[in-house]
Order: sequence, then structure tokens, then C-alpha cells
Amino acid sequence: MARNITSRNVNYSQWYLDVIKAAEMADYAPVRGCMVIRPTGYAVWESIQRHFDDAFKKTGHVNAYFPLLIPYSFLNKEAEHVEGFAPEVATVTHAGGEELEEPYAVRPTSETVIGHMYSKWIHSWRDLPVLMNQWCNVMRWEKRPRLFLRTSEFLWQEGHTAHATAEEAVEETLKMLEVYRKVMEEEIALPVIPGEKTAGERFPGAAQTYTCEAMMSDTKALQAGTSHFLGQNFAKAFEIQFQNKAGELEYCWTTSWGISTRLIGALIMTHSDDDGLVLPPRIAPVKAAIVPISTDENVLDNVLLPRARELAGQLNEALGGLYTTVDTQFHLKPGDRFFYHLQRGVPLRLELGEKDMAAGTVRCVRRDTGEKTDAAADALIPTVKDLLEKMQDNIYSRAKAFREEHTTSADSYDEMKAILEEKGGFVKAYFGGSAEDEVRIREETGATPRCIPLSDSSTGKCIITGKEGRRTIFAKAY
Amino acid sequence: MARNITSRNVNYSQWYLDVIKAAEMADYAPVRGCMVIRPTGYAVWESIQRHFDDAFKKTGHVNAYFPLLIPYSFLNKEAEHVEGFAPEVATVTHAGGEELEEPYAVRPTSETVIGHMYSKWIHSWRDLPVLMNQWCNVMRWEKRPRLFLRTSEFLWQEGHTAHATAEEAVEETLKMLEVYRKVMEEEIALPVIPGEKTAGERFPGAAQTYTCEAMMSDTKALQAGTSHFLGQNFAKAFEIQFQNKAGELEYCWTTSWGISTRLIGALIMTHSDDDGLVLPPRIAPVKAAIVPISTDENVLDNVLLPRARELAGQLNEALGGLYTTVDTQFHLKPGDRFFYHLQRGVPLRLELGEKDMAAGTVRCVRRDTGEKTDAAADALIPTVKDLLEKMQDNIYSRAKAFREEHTTSADSYDEMKAILEEKGGFVKAYFGGSAEDEVRIREETGATPRCIPLSDSSTGKCIITGKEGRRTIFAKAY
Repeated sequence: MARNITSRNVNYSQWYLDVIKAAEMADYAPVRGCMVIRPTGYAVWESIQRHFDDAFKKTGHVNAYFPLLIPYSFLNKEAEHVEGFAPEVATVTHAGGEELEEPYAVRPTSETVIGHMYSKWIHSWRDLPVLMNQWCNVMRWEKRPRLFLRTSEFLWQEGHTAHATAEEAVEETLKMLEVYRKVMEEEIALPVIPGEKTAGERFPGAAQTYTCEAMMSDTKALQAGTSHFLGQNFAKAFEIQFQNKAGELEYCWTTSWGISTRLIGALIMTHSDDDGLVLPPRIAPVKAAIVPISTDENVLDNVLLPRARELAGQLNEALGGLYTTVDTQFHLKPGDRFFYHLQRGVPLRLELGEKDMAAGTVRCVRRDTGEKTDAAADALIPTVKDLLEKMQDNIYSRAKAFREEHTTSADSYDEMKAILEEKGGFVKAYFGGSAEDEVRIREETGATPRCIPLSDSSTGKCIITGKEGRRTIFAKAY
Repeated sequence: MARNITSRNVNYSQWYLDVIKAAEMADYAPVRGCMVIRPTGYAVWESIQRHFDDAFKKTGHVNAYFPLLIPYSFLNKEAEHVEGFAPEVATVTHAGGEELEEPYAVRPTSETVIGHMYSKWIHSWRDLPVLMNQWCNVMRWEKRPRLFLRTSEFLWQEGHTAHATAEEAVEETLKMLEVYRKVMEEEIALPVIPGEKTAGERFPGAAQTYTCEAMMSDTKALQAGTSHFLGQNFAKAFEIQFQNKAGELEYCWTTSWGISTRLIGALIMTHSDDDGLVLPPRIAPVKAAIVPISTDENVLDNVLLPRARELAGQLNEALGGLYTTVDTQFHLKPGDRFFYHLQRGVPLRLELGEKDMAAGTVRCVRRDTGEKTDAAADALIPTVKDLLEKMQDNIYSRAKAFREEHTTSADSYDEMKAILEEKGGFVKAYFGGSAEDEVRIREETGATPRCIPLSDSSTGKCIITGKEGRRTIFAKAY
């Protein structure tokens, strides 16, 4: 066990922060509630971005950039929206040495200013659908900050689309939910449950909110991404209208959807262990670290290091990027050098000592299992590829099995309460209650309805009202 | 000539705005001095980003993210820095429903907050050099905004590095200047003059500022990117210290360097013409637009369109990306469809009509020269590659020749004044004056010293003081 990392069993919150610190992923900023994303963390974000951005572009979306500042009058145009966001907003009151006539909000999300621009750009049915996305920073003032999970400023993408019909907008909402699920499961190895949010958990101003819900390794839930069908709420507030084929003016139907740097927190709390960070191979910026080891400086410099660099070059070419690093921290002990890469979540450590050289092998050590494989040096590329794939599959399956072990069905509210208290995790129960009922459940159990899974359309007796309800997952959540 | 675009000769400023509007690159935001970067413009920015980011990573830099907000007390720590930026700062005074104890500045640049973090992270000579970059938005309140060139918010990258010695930091400053030059000239086809700024034009807080200066098609200069040697100014203000090999504490030597969305303005004003935007092929998000043309709907849908899509697929594969588009705006006249792509700066238009099909050819039309080539369909890939390369070379050479035509040497201040008035452009003259002399020249001629070219180390009699001066380029500038 790492001495610089608290065990998960001792203190999960401290473990999480220790993992981040040991991997140098982020640090607190000298601004209340804000973080600095350090290179190890940012490289993970770049990798996550690339996967999502490719998927957005493949589904016909284009990127754009809208202003950071939003006139307060815009926020006020959609009643639920301003009610939801006003308490978290940061406000610019002065600029260029003068007090502003109207203060600006630093964007907490951009439905309003994008709605304003769409009303200027959309005229005819021929202009639809409009399928845009932006990658940017947003600010929601946070009283209880937590690195990556809740920070006053965070990075995210927000997709905003406008359509001619409700059907098309709903289809888009669900299509992007599926894009999210696919990238989360296949690239980030994060098993998620796509589902609909209950009324009490909807995005302020949305007609329907969908979510991908994940389970962290302490059995708490984390909302990994959301997709909203906004109906005509924002179209009416911002006059986003188009002339239909019959020449009549109609309001558009809009959607929005987002994922954020919070996913880095999700990834840490899903895969990492008491030794530190574990990164999914498809996300890891460094997929393999080659560590030449010898007590003989001459051998290190003139034999092992050139060979390590040669192997790194071959691997980088085979993997299609600068994914291999060569460790040259010769002033450290081998154990400390191993730990350096281990704590940064590097999927494979490739040890190259004199004995390995003599035997024509490289010792490959997997980050997830610690399993060692002595690969023939001339078969290193296929071995590395195979081990990376196996690790990707393993950490996904492991997380999925963990979630299944910690998912229980409850037939009554008492049963749900008992499960939440004793075992935690996800509780499946029929629910058809109101937003008030949701508040009561949260106050009494600490749990909230996470989602109504899309895969389960069954109905049954609501554990609160006794009336018909839908199968809903409840859990304590981040 | 395009009816929606004012001719450059009639009104250059209006031409610039008309080109942006016709290409749908950007729009004014409902926030004073801010812009919205529309998908055509943003795709160009993504392309520019990719080229620079690759070059930064190849030279060993890593990306990170620092907070948007900066405590005012930080700005105050470096006297010249705060003097330079305070008048342009936007200020957050309220957040989370409360007035803040200390107001925050929305970052105009991040030397201060990054300096603060470096002081926490850097301890030993082993931690050096630190080579970081961030891509982000910054805010400098602008009284006379102009799309892409001067907006209150803009996107940029800012590199920040820390070194053990002055020599290393100067080397880094010049290395990044050369990275800038290379990407600007080879990818953006922007001829630039790398040089040093005079004292009056330095970045606030820098010991030396270097620049890449470009000439726009109205002969005015544009600073396309800058690289600063900051000496120990910020290291002393923020206590960025390290223990050297002898165990003594020393201050680091730091650098910073940046390019921004301003480069999109530079690109427009260098290459575009009275018909609209011209994009360098290596930057263009869409490199070729295939336009199937027929008056027969059946032929369009069943013969030409499938063939166009087939060709697009082949071209995309050969070009290594989704760089080809198929025009399906069949409700428009062919001329309007041609104009659509032309005004968006698409380097090649590939016309595919029934006659072309019958002859087994595709008509390729270059955006820069209008030149038409009937390519055999089975040789389309090499023809397209060849035409794109020729266009890339041509627009670079054309811009460089234009700059040379509009560069004049002056031996006296009177001569310089006459040239600036009659001909404009770049004026080369020996200059060794003070910052006060620079102010006087600007007031009297409208021109400023743009740079002392690195390629010219000659000295001569200063046109102002008569003492020894260095060869300096003067020009009116954006």
C-alpha cells in the first residue's frame, strides 16, 4: 500500500484527494472553489475530449464559441432557468475601469445566449436542424468544492440543437445520450445506466432530462452526463422561430446536452485503487512506461537506454501516437521509479534490466492486476496491444460486476431505507411520486432518484404513493 | 464581384466585415465588444489550434488549465504588469449571491496566477524546466471592437515556462518564436518577420518581447504572435525559487508566449479577395466541395449524387479526414451553389455535370486563381492533392511578394514620413530612440516600430537621434 495514499476503507474522501495529489492531476487554485488542472489531469481531459468530439462530429455536429458573459436580462427570460441558476452565478459589475450599466453573469450554461443567437440565424425550415456544440469553461459558485466533482469553474462541452418538430428534438436528445453511453462505456470503461430523470431532478427549464448514471467504488452514484429535451421553453423565451414549408411561423424545439471535467472524477472513483490512479488504456495519455534498470551507470546509458528508446519508438509507431515514455529518473531507486508511473495510472510498466536484455525479453506489468508477463522483445508490440485490450476489458467488467453486486430491488419504502442504510448502492423500486415526495425521501434517507432506466419499462406499485409507478433507481449521489 | 461584399478598394474595413459575414465566420454578441465564433470560423480555429498544439507537444510542452479568475492582489505584485492591464480588466465583485471580500479579475493573461502555482510546484533544479501551455479564453475590455482583431473576449494559447538559467529561458523564447514562424508560414501561408520589439512595445513586465509581424493586404502590419523573455520579474514577484545543484535558493527565469483568434483576422486580411474568404488548403476544414449539377432531378439523385459521394469517400480517405463535402443544395441555381463555397473560402470546387460524367472527368476550380482543370476521374486524387499544394504555395508567395513590394527603406525621418503618407507599408529605418521617441513618431505618422528583424543585425544612424540605431520596421498597425 502507498504511504502517501489513505486506504479507501479508512477514509474514501481522503483517498480520492490523495490519489489526485499523488498523480499530480489537480491542485486547489488561489480562487475560492476553483481548481488548477495539472498536466497529468489535463492530458486525460484532452483524451476524453477527443473521443467525444469525434463522436459529435460523426453525428453531424459542428463546434462554435459563444461569449463567456451573459446579460442578466437573458437569464431572467426563462423563469425556471433563472430560479435554478441565479444562486450560483458569478457577476461582472465593472469593466474597462467603469461600472457597467447592466451587470453580466459569467455563464453557468449557455442556453440563453445561444437561444438569442439562434433567433437571429434561423429563419426557414431549410436552416434546420441546427446542430452545434461548444467546448468551454463555465462557472457555478460552489460552497463545498471538491476537485473535479464540484468546482466553481469547470470545463465542459454543451451541445445545443434546434429542430422543426418535437419528435426530431426528442430523437436528438436520445441519440446524444447514446453517444455519451457509448464513449463512457467503450473508451472510459465506465459502466453507466442511461435513463430519464424524475421531475424533481430535471435541468431548470427542460421538459425532460436524460442521464447516464454511474456507480463509484464507494457505491454512491455519479451523474456522468445529461441530455435535455427543452421543448419550446427556450424557443418561446428567445423567439427562435422558423417559417415552415407552408410559410407559417413556428417555434423551434430545442435540446441541450453536456459532459464535463467531472468525468475525470468519475474515472478516478471507478477504477483507482489504494496504490493510486488507474487509467483506462484507451484514455491514458501514456499507455506504457519503459523503465531501464541497472546499478551500472555505463550499462544504463550505453546499453539499456538506447534499447529502451528504440522499443519506445517502435511502440509509438505501432500505437499511432506518443503513447510510450522512457523513464530516465536514474537518481531514484527502481521501486520509486515503478511507483512514479503506477501512481500516475500508466496501464503498463515495461521493465528492462540486464537479465531481460540477455534473455531477449521485456517484463510487462499490468497496472490493474499487477500481473507480470515476460514478453519476447520481438513480440513486444502484439503483447503490449493485447495486454492493453485485456486491461481495458477487465476494468470495465470489474466495475460492472461491482455495480451489479451493489444493486438491490426493494418492494417497499421501509425495505429501501434498510438497504440504503446497511448496504448502500443502487436500489431499484417502483416510484410514481411528486417532487415533494423526492424531497422527503432525500431528507429521510440521503438518497435521490437517479434515473428511470431506459431498458426497464415495467410499472408497479409506487413505494410512496401506492399508485402506479415506474422502475426507478435510488442512491446517495455525488 | 460579389454583391454582398464591398470591394477592398472602396472600403477596406467594410470589406473585412463583409467577408466575415458572407462566410458566416463570426457575429457580434449581445455583450459589449464580444463576438460569437460561428462554425465556419471555429473550424478554422480548430485547424490552427491543431497545428500549433502538435508543434508545442513536439517541443516537449504539456497542456494544463489555470483558473479564469485572478485575485486583484496578484495583478498588483508586478508593477508594470498591473499598469499595463488594469485599464482593460473586467471584474467579478459578486458570486453565489454575496459580495466578495476581494474582487477577482477575469484573466487578461495568466502570468500572475501561473507564477503563484509555479512557486508551489517548483522546489529543485530537478523540477526544471517547467514547460506548460494552456488554451483558454481571456478578457481585455475593448472600446473599439473589431471581429477577430480586437474583441473584449478572445481565445488564445499562453505558454508559460520556468528555467534554471537566463540563457535557457532566452533560448526557449526564441525557440517558440521559431515554432510560431514555422506554423504561420507553412500552414497558414502567412509570411511573417520574426523580430524583437522595441522597449515601448514590450509586454508589460517582460525583459524582452519578440514578435512575428505580418503585412495585411491594405499594407498595414499585424502582430501575429509574441514570445516574451520575462527575466526574473515574475519569479521575484511570485517567489518562484528552486534549490540549485549546490543547494542554494535561486529565482527562476521565465517566459511566456501566445497566439490568438486574431490569427483568423490575419488570415482573412492576407489571402481573401473581393469575392470573399480564401483559406489556405492546410487550414481549410473543407478542402474540396463536390457540386453535382443537372437540370434533371432523376439524373441528379440517381447518377450524379451517388457518384459525387463515391468520389468524396475516396478523397476523404486519401486526404486522411472529412475534408470533402458534397453540395446538395439542389433548390439553388448552380451559380449560387458555386458562390456558397467560394465565399466560404473552400480551396477547390469540383463540378460534376452530365458532360463531365460522360467524358470521365471532373472539373476542378481553384479558389485563389479561378483556374479550371478537367481532371480524369480516375486521377482525381493526385490532381486534387497537386492543386491544393499549388494553391498553398501560390497564396504564400503572393502574400510575400506583396509584402516585398510594399517594403521601403528610409534614411531619414522625413523620408519615412513621406513613404508612410504616400505608399504605406513597411518602412525600414535605423532607430535607436527612446519610448518617448516612439510616442512622438506614432503621434506624427500613425506608425509604430513593429520589430527589429532577427535576420538583420546591421546598425546605422538613428533617424531620430542621429546616434547608433538598429534596423527597425515601422508601419501603421492593427
